Amino acid sequence: MARVVVDVMLKPEILDPQGKAVQGALPRLGFEGISDVRQGKRFELEVGEVTEARLAEVRTIAETLLSNPVIEDFEVHVEENAQ
Amino acid sequence: MARVVVDVMLKPEILDPQGKAVQGALPRLGFEGISDVRQGKRFELEVGEVTEARLAEVRTIAETLLSNPVIEDFEVHVEENAQ
Repeated sequence: MARVVVDVMLKPEILDPQGKAVQGALPRLGFEGISDVRQGKRFELEVGEVTEARLAEVRTIAETLLSNPVIEDFEVHVEENAQ
Repeated sequence: MARVVVDVMLKPEILDPQGKAVQGALPRLGFEGISDVRQGKRFELEVGEVTEARLAEVRTIAETLLSNPVIEDFEVHVEENAQ
């Protein structure tokens, strides 16, 4: 059993109010030195075996179901040390 | 400028309705071979310089502000190829 991870983040030019809310809270809570925060989604997909065809399928899933390509970018990578 | 990533996922024993909804939709859309889906959050924090003190600060932020330690686990890692 292998794990494929899909990270979905808003494109850099899209405003991220959730991230900005976290960023705004940090100095009030005494944390300095964090200049920007962006919040996105992480999907962990369990697959039987990692093949090129399976990864292509996951990329299609990421593009059509897990992200909105108008405003979001995604990255697919295989997690080596899956439990 | 370096980027520190905080991945927040529900603990394995906690039900994940969002992930289950995605998992249930996959076969209907013609995607087979994905046996489980979990959905979590990904935070990208921009920091000036990655030091041990800064990483400890990010871990405190992750534990107190970005995750709910009762139901969620988090992982902190430095992203090497940050833009």
